[in-house]
Amino acid sequence: MCVYENLKKMDITLPAPPPKGGIYVPVKQVGNLIFTSGAGPIVDGKPAFLGKVGKELSVEEGQKAAKIVAINILSMLHQYLGDLNRIKNVVKILGFVASADDFNDQPQVINGASQFLVDVFGEKGQHARSAISTNELPGNIPVEIEGVFEIE
Amino acid sequence: MCVYENLKKMDITLPAPPPKGGIYVPVKQVGNLIFTSGAGPIVDGKPAFLGKVGKELSVEEGQKAAKIVAINILSMLHQYLGDLNRIKNVVKILGFVASADDFNDQPQVINGASQFLVDVFGEKGQHARSAISTNELPGNIPVEIEGVFEIE
Amino acid sequence: MCVYENLKKMDITLPAPPPKGGIYVPVKQVGNLIFTSGAGPIVDGKPAFLGKVGKELSVEEGQKAAKIVAINILSMLHQYLGDLNRIKNVVKILGFVASADDFNDQPQVINGASQFLVDVFGEKGQHARSAISTNELPGNIPVEIEGVFEIE
Repeated sequence: MCVYENLKKMDITLPAPPPKGGIYVPVKQVGNLIFTSGAGPIVDGKPAFLGKVGKELSVEEGQKAAKIVAINILSMLHQYLGDLNRIKNVVKILGFVASADDFNDQPQVINGASQFLVDVFGEKGQHARSAISTNELPGNIPVEIEGVFEIE
Repeated sequence: MCVYENLKKMDITLPAPPPKGGIYVPVKQVGNLIFTSGAGPIVDGKPAFLGKVGKELSVEEGQKAAKIVAINILSMLHQYLGDLNRIKNVVKILGFVASADDFNDQPQVINGASQFLVDVFGEKGQHARSAISTNELPGNIPVEIEGVFEIE
Repeated sequence: MCVYENLKKMDITLPAPPPKGGIYVPVKQVGNLIFTSGAGPIVDGKPAFLGKVGKELSVEEGQKAAKIVAINILSMLHQYLGDLNRIKNVVKILGFVASADDFNDQPQVINGASQFLVDVFGEKGQHARSAISTNELPGNIPVEIEGVFEIE
């Protein structure tokens, strides 16, 4: 299952990786593990969504934001690895959702990222996951996700 | 030290793993590491506790919730591994506590999980840990914990 | 590049590791990875800063707090390893900033820790990172950071 064919079928074009907001690297490899930095729903250098899910944003908008985050994670990995087919497993993601008071549907929001990863990677895209709420996120983005990947 | 004997002495029966709330797997192995997805204080398919520690729930109730989360993590690992004695080390947990404003005793709450893991696994149950607050959690549960384990 | 020479040039003296607040170990090794527990801006057994960034504390105070956290992480690693030069790579940190409503500059705050790690370790100090907000933190500290390190 070639990752790039799947992306093409899904009509997804990997963008250039989003600009960094601090003193860190987008991905860091140790052995056959790759840790990806927290990524946001940035499109063309700007957040595609702002605000909190359950207040400014609906669950559906949160899911769209989460999907964009996952696309950006893949763009970071593509830049680093040169070939996304080197990814042997999506191990785990940790997804944060900036949530209004009494909004408790973080898993639904992060599903936007998880579903995308499963669609792209198939069986090896099955990952462990935590969906957590936060009161705020950098730059007022609604979703930030970090991940762990295994490579060949 | 047999894990199942310790559980029996502690009068703990591992339940069937709780139902998933999204598109992910409960545990994911990479090499000799196992990453467990965020788990909650679910008993018989329903949250045993709801609300925020420091508001609807006391620290003691939060600790009980954290202990149930740890039991559920073990049930997920038991289902995956077949034998919990294959666990060589409890490496780390990351515990989130849905907290009322001005509640700052997250470590006390997560101790409910940490103490349980040490009681069950003994020396190899000594783990690294972070206890963090959140403003909300999925389904209004008070505690969500993810972990990293090392297996033989 | 000797870590201790860099610390000396930066006029930093590693303190004794801060006291634990719960049932866990400061660092846990698995293979050539070390996971460090969430650490806070503790100096001489007391928080050097209290409160939320964007409310009681400015961004600059948050950065100072983050730097102290990074120093404490190194003191924990020094105690465990005996020699910080055994650190081959700073792999990743996950930084939580207790934030007032509408404070969204968590990356700037965590830069206080990231910059310190890069200054101390040079090239191998380049790390992946997530900067996240929380509504509260243990003991009302403003910054809590956990990390993953690779050793020889």
